Amino acid sequence: MSKIIDQAVIAADNDKLAADLKADYAVLGEQLSRRGIAIDDIKAQASAFAVALPSWGVGTGGTRFARFAGKGEPRNVFDKVQDCGVIHQLVTITPTVSPHLPWDKATDYQELRQHAAAFGLNFDCVNSNTFQDQKGQEHSYKFGSLSHADAATRQQAVDHNIECIEIGKALGAKALTVWVGDGSNFPGQQHFARAFDRYLDSNRKIYAALPDDWQMFLEHKMFEPAFYSTVLQDWGSSYLAATQLGEKAKCLVDLGHHAPNVNIEMIVARLAAFGRLAGFHFNDSKYGDDDLDSGSINPYQLFLIFNELVDAAERKLAGFKPEYMLDQSHNVTDPIESLMNSAVEVQRAYAQALLVDRMALAGYQDGNDALQATRTLKQAYLTDVSPILAMARLERGGAIDPVAAYRASGYRARVAAERPAVASSGGGIV
Amino acid sequence: MSKIIDQAVIAADNDKLAADLKADYAVLGEQLSRRGIAIDDIKAQASAFAVALPSWGVGTGGTRFARFAGKGEPRNVFDKVQDCGVIHQLVTITPTVSPHLPWDKATDYQELRQHAAAFGLNFDCVNSNTFQDQKGQEHSYKFGSLSHADAATRQQAVDHNIECIEIGKALGAKALTVWVGDGSNFPGQQHFARAFDRYLDSNRKIYAALPDDWQMFLEHKMFEPAFYSTVLQDWGSSYLAATQLGEKAKCLVDLGHHAPNVNIEMIVARLAAFGRLAGFHFNDSKYGDDDLDSGSINPYQLFLIFNELVDAAERKLAGFKPEYMLDQSHNVTDPIESLMNSAVEVQRAYAQALLVDRMALAGYQDGNDALQATRTLKQAYLTDVSPILAMARLERGGAIDPVAAYRASGYRARVAAERPAVASSGGGIV
Amino acid sequence: MSKIIDQAVIAADNDKLAADLKADYAVLGEQLSRRGIAIDDIKAQASAFAVALPSWGVGTGGTRFARFAGKGEPRNVFDKVQDCGVIHQLVTITPTVSPHLPWDKATDYQELRQHAAAFGLNFDCVNSNTFQDQKGQEHSYKFGSLSHADAATRQQAVDHNIECIEIGKALGAKALTVWVGDGSNFPGQQHFARAFDRYLDSNRKIYAALPDDWQMFLEHKMFEPAFYSTVLQDWGSSYLAATQLGEKAKCLVDLGHHAPNVNIEMIVARLAAFGRLAGFHFNDSKYGDDDLDSGSINPYQLFLIFNELVDAAERKLAGFKPEYMLDQSHNVTDPIESLMNSAVEVQRAYAQALLVDRMALAGYQDGNDALQATRTLKQAYLTDVSPILAMARLERGGAIDPVAAYRASGYRARVAAERPAVASSGGGIV
Amino acid sequence: MSKIIDQAVIAADNDKLAADLKADYAVLGEQLSRRGIAIDDIKAQASAFAVALPSWGVGTGGTRFARFAGKGEPRNVFDKVQDCGVIHQLVTITPTVSPHLPWDKATDYQELRQHAAAFGLNFDCVNSNTFQDQKGQEHSYKFGSLSHADAATRQQAVDHNIECIEIGKALGAKALTVWVGDGSNFPGQQHFARAFDRYLDSNRKIYAALPDDWQMFLEHKMFEPAFYSTVLQDWGSSYLAATQLGEKAKCLVDLGHHAPNVNIEMIVARLAAFGRLAGFHFNDSKYGDDDLDSGSINPYQLFLIFNELVDAAERKLAGFKPEYMLDQSHNVTDPIESLMNSAVEVQRAYAQALLVDRMALAGYQDGNDALQATRTLKQAYLTDVSPILAMARLERGGAIDPVAAYRASGYRARVAAERPAVASSGGGIV
Repeated sequence: MSKIIDQAVIAADNDKLAADLKADYAVLGEQLSRRGIAIDDIKAQASAFAVALPSWGVGTGGTRFARFAGKGEPRNVFDKVQDCGVIHQLVTITPTVSPHLPWDKATDYQELRQHAAAFGLNFDCVNSNTFQDQKGQEHSYKFGSLSHADAATRQQAVDHNIECIEIGKALGAKALTVWVGDGSNFPGQQHFARAFDRYLDSNRKIYAALPDDWQMFLEHKMFEPAFYSTVLQDWGSSYLAATQLGEKAKCLVDLGHHAPNVNIEMIVARLAAFGRLAGFHFNDSKYGDDDLDSGSINPYQLFLIFNELVDAAERKLAGFKPEYMLDQSHNVTDPIESLMNSAVEVQRAYAQALLVDRMALAGYQDGNDALQATRTLKQAYLTDVSPILAMARLERGGAIDPVAAYRASGYRARVAAERPAVASSGGGIV
Repeated sequence: MSKIIDQAVIAADNDKLAADLKADYAVLGEQLSRRGIAIDDIKAQASAFAVALPSWGVGTGGTRFARFAGKGEPRNVFDKVQDCGVIHQLVTITPTVSPHLPWDKATDYQELRQHAAAFGLNFDCVNSNTFQDQKGQEHSYKFGSLSHADAATRQQAVDHNIECIEIGKALGAKALTVWVGDGSNFPGQQHFARAFDRYLDSNRKIYAALPDDWQMFLEHKMFEPAFYSTVLQDWGSSYLAATQLGEKAKCLVDLGHHAPNVNIEMIVARLAAFGRLAGFHFNDSKYGDDDLDSGSINPYQLFLIFNELVDAAERKLAGFKPEYMLDQSHNVTDPIESLMNSAVEVQRAYAQALLVDRMALAGYQDGNDALQATRTLKQAYLTDVSPILAMARLERGGAIDPVAAYRASGYRARVAAERPAVASSGGGIV
Repeated sequence: MSKIIDQAVIAADNDKLAADLKADYAVLGEQLSRRGIAIDDIKAQASAFAVALPSWGVGTGGTRFARFAGKGEPRNVFDKVQDCGVIHQLVTITPTVSPHLPWDKATDYQELRQHAAAFGLNFDCVNSNTFQDQKGQEHSYKFGSLSHADAATRQQAVDHNIECIEIGKALGAKALTVWVGDGSNFPGQQHFARAFDRYLDSNRKIYAALPDDWQMFLEHKMFEPAFYSTVLQDWGSSYLAATQLGEKAKCLVDLGHHAPNVNIEMIVARLAAFGRLAGFHFNDSKYGDDDLDSGSINPYQLFLIFNELVDAAERKLAGFKPEYMLDQSHNVTDPIESLMNSAVEVQRAYAQALLVDRMALAGYQDGNDALQATRTLKQAYLTDVSPILAMARLERGGAIDPVAAYRASGYRARVAAERPAVASSGGGIV
Repeated sequence: MSKIIDQAVIAADNDKLAADLKADYAVLGEQLSRRGIAIDDIKAQASAFAVALPSWGVGTGGTRFARFAGKGEPRNVFDKVQDCGVIHQLVTITPTVSPHLPWDKATDYQELRQHAAAFGLNFDCVNSNTFQDQKGQEHSYKFGSLSHADAATRQQAVDHNIECIEIGKALGAKALTVWVGDGSNFPGQQHFARAFDRYLDSNRKIYAALPDDWQMFLEHKMFEPAFYSTVLQDWGSSYLAATQLGEKAKCLVDLGHHAPNVNIEMIVARLAAFGRLAGFHFNDSKYGDDDLDSGSINPYQLFLIFNELVDAAERKLAGFKPEYMLDQSHNVTDPIESLMNSAVEVQRAYAQALLVDRMALAGYQDGNDALQATRTLKQAYLTDVSPILAMARLERGGAIDPVAAYRASGYRARVAAERPAVASSGGGIV
């Protein structure tokens, strides 16, 4: 397997930190053992954790006002995969890449697959794009895609999704994620029921093209780019749509796609209980679909979500096998750094959730001891599991401090020299 | 039928206003005829409109901080029904009262029914109350009712609901509305999935006790009195629960029970399309479940909701027969005045929605003419239908200006003399 | 004055509608006279109403996901001014254009001014742009502009604003509007106090360059493009900044720049009372800074804002002279149509607010008659003032139905033939 | 000093935990020393931290729907002070009680002061109450208090506040906190500007009665109990009011009184920078003014607030001396337990904020290294400071695990035997 970052650089950085890490890990192990927890078990589970990288996430993101390009922006899907390889090499828990089409189209998908495999990467859920018009496209998505009033436009969007499945098959993927920008900006612009019927009808055609071992992930969103209504506005509509389509259709949860104040962990619990939880697009937000780095704004919420996931896993719910993916917009950081850090923050929430004393918790719940119940969660959350995560990385050949090792490697400067500079630009508004 | 307000008072007030009303009605009729609308048809439909009164709504409401009693507060359900009779006499579109138990318990329900009938009133949906403890109650609802961890407490709540059905049968009602305060104030306090299972299980027992021609209305709410999670937090969970229970279970929409910014009219469209729209608790809000007067804060939203309802009715959706009820907290107004005014505001939204040129609208929708589509709605909304509503009242023996006639009648002073003054009080906090 | 739309087209459309309009106007006049209102007075005030057009608003807007270009997109500021001329010709209440720099830079501003004057247009508030990088710009605004940590970048942003003042002087403007995208996406990224100090310091330099008869408008915004914090996040910070700068600094209110549920009309009242209300960027929104058409989502809120403005004007508050401007993003409509319709909706709210019986209202307020107080507002709001607005347009040479006349004119097709097609594009994300 | 809880009980519990605590403290000390931090310094600062207890907080709270009483509810202010004494004995960082009048009226304030002193307690900010009517009160606050339209009602509210100052002087307090429920439920009910003028005018009279060494704290709130507008709706209005009143007037921040999504830490920074930060009412919330336990919903937000406070303290801002108080509603827990736990959570956030490497942070901020800046905050936040807090308690004679020691003491059962049971009740609604 080709390692992009010189392992000697990683080793040098690790050498500086390893002694302290070992001491910290040992101490934490002792502390956890008092609580009846075997640290090595937690480490093993954290080590087996995986979260997918979005191919588009390694490029700098932007807003409708502007996009400020970074240095060494990837030129194509091969560059993107290479950047993902850097991330995986350093954090070791991002073995898959989720492609976005047509952005990631290639002429030879076997070549692409081998390119990825060289970095230890496979391809995960394929994402279709019917929220933008592509050059030479016959019908515009200005007024919708899968739910468009015009049958030919809908068919074009269906065809694109089916093509995504085909490409996904070539790449070894097993799921299609469908997010559409369809909706309306004015009361009355769209007939809610007829638009939803058309949406369902188009999705049925896509669903029919799914291979037997594939799943279809429906991604709801409250608003943006449509600002009065969206065709799949919340998990309720997503659940309705999934049950209309069939067993292979599930509901994807993006943390930034909900109304203000919504209890997302409860939505997770509901979808898990009723067998329709597809998985996650992880990110964080303060206002809307801000696509900030995972765990950067409300880390306790992320923990509470994983508390539900670990609980569901332990109860062995039927059909419970959620897919995890990062989906963030990196506007002011080096995307590689943000993705590395975010992968670790998601893994952190998972490891913390593993520490919850579920037997004690159930007792407090049944006894209406609200304070001790919530303190039981907090005890797990307050535990600094950093040594566990770092030790897992170290043992898998990754970096104790991925950002430090990455900076030491000079990777960004290297690709900045190879890849032509990209102009910053106005966003959607100009 | 006994008329509480002297019809001569009403007539005197109407006499002052009738000439102008007739002129305004005639003019509006001409204007509408240009748009191909027969004003008498609209009047007939508006006249047939009915919205139920909440028995508790005729008393002054309060907050957790305080309740400032008004004059002449009703002492019992007989007083409440009498106050409802005043409202119905003046606005003519509130022929039913929705009782809340155990608040409205009586020793003789036939007597109560006759008392109501004397005012032209019948009883509508029965509301159970398991969000408060009643004197002598064996188990407390402090930690929940239908979803309580303790089986005996759940059974007590189930029994109360079944008793509500029995009383409702005696009163001629055909539906039970179930709203519970169950939820949690701390992460971890409640196991979401197990609590929901218990909630469903309890509801199944209640459902089993429903007469054949009854329905069961589930009322979701995002928060309050529980502030971290509620067991039926949104329409998605409500839909899930209804489909688990059976065909007679439907989802009630209270306008104040949603997350900020949520598109409520779309929820209405979804529930209508999938045969699960129970009906409404009408009120208005700016922040949370403010329970303000209907149409007082965002009248266009109320219109957009009726736009969906009229559309669903015209498309003759299967099982579409929503129940309408006011549910407001009257903290600073005379409750009778607020309820009269609110009933008219709801009727106004309905009448406006009847004016929408649906053929033109469908054309604009199919042609992606967003501006003309939204202007089509606005044309209906901007029409001042007050003369239609007033004429419908006049023809049915009500008041052209219900508030003016009510004030002229001296009813409040009269009952204030009869009914003992009630002390203002701290709310829940002291 | 050159009329872009053939007046014969307008006249032909008006001819079809004039008879009905006259009848409706007469009838409404009679109805208002019963309320003691002289319709011609209202018409005169509505006719004198003016709202500025944003030069950028005549182009199709977009989101970070995509921009779907329309036909006949303006190529430059001269095209934009011409499109504004069409709007003004038809609605007659948009006599000024607000330019955005550097987007609207020209080689000869006297020529541009004459070009505008030919359409009866003048230039209004100048808008600076330091939220995007321009080609050849030395320092990037990726990490801020007026509040940037680097002094040279701040100076560049200051210089740009001073250049805007110079260009504004050449164009006859009297105010500079400063909105910046400065803020942060991560807790800790920015030191709040130091960033605000830098922001104030930069603004002091701009303020110092203001001509004596100019004002400086500060525009706050809660979020976007920065998603954790913005340097001028709310009216409180805006007020603080304005008072630090001096008397010529005032606070601009954009309707979409507030937190959910915020009572905007109260902010208007506060700023008016304390002499710092600059004016408005009118638009509407349901979720965030959606930039939807004015009055399309919550028309009652728009009325309540004008209720404050009319009240403040009648009380002759010191320094009360707000500037009105539309600021919308037209993603799915013809921008000219949206701007025409929106100008009329803003004017409508103003005319409705003029109808409020303020003497009666004050009496109800002093007497704590909440119901009659709110009904007094509603009486004004429910009045369909369309005939007043249309008559005002007709008398000023505009169109009774501006959208119909515009469509009849074939203007869009004409410019589509002249102006090259623009490709749709991904927004900020690709 | 009288100790309510038998110190032997505390000692017994501490004995079980002390060895582990010492080990954990030592280990943490080593880890922190690597970061250049002396753990004993942090402990000393954490030990000197103090947060006031709300006298009303030791009673069970409720909502408008119901109040479910607990066992051993305090009967009067002497009981409340005793309960506060328990808390202070166990957590050692709550040396002051904030009284609420007239709830806490006594016949002999010297006796009350001595009663408190016996538990090591002093009295802090006095809270007035003009949001409820008291028995025998001449004028009702139904329609407002300090901003009421009627002068006599306003004067009554002013007099009450002045009486609060007098009582506060007798109790040794140095500040008056003014929160009013004034506002409106309907558009038009209140004239915003005139109501604010009356509010200011009343406050000027109260301000005039302040002793020289007192301060006046203004507490804003977005909504509840008024649901359309409140007279002091946000920090902007609070700042305006404070500057109108004088130097002794400052702005109090309650964490639950803001609009959704608002960046509270930035408000803290603004008020601190401009010398008007009074202090805090600590609690947590997910939806509105939920008054949940501090740190129970969004602990990172609490940390970010303390990050601002520690930063402001280190910069030695003029007039920066914020008062800290808990203000929570304990509906489902033992109030003593919640207050103990919450005091520790607030102290935890403070201790974590002390760990921030501010020199490094400033460097990252100036260098626009957003990722490392936010990781610098996270490094401090992820540190489990529990051993520091526990050691501080232990050294001051408190409990390592206050909840465990409290439960072991049997205090609740003891007072439940002494104090008569209180009936649960409907809240404001019935």
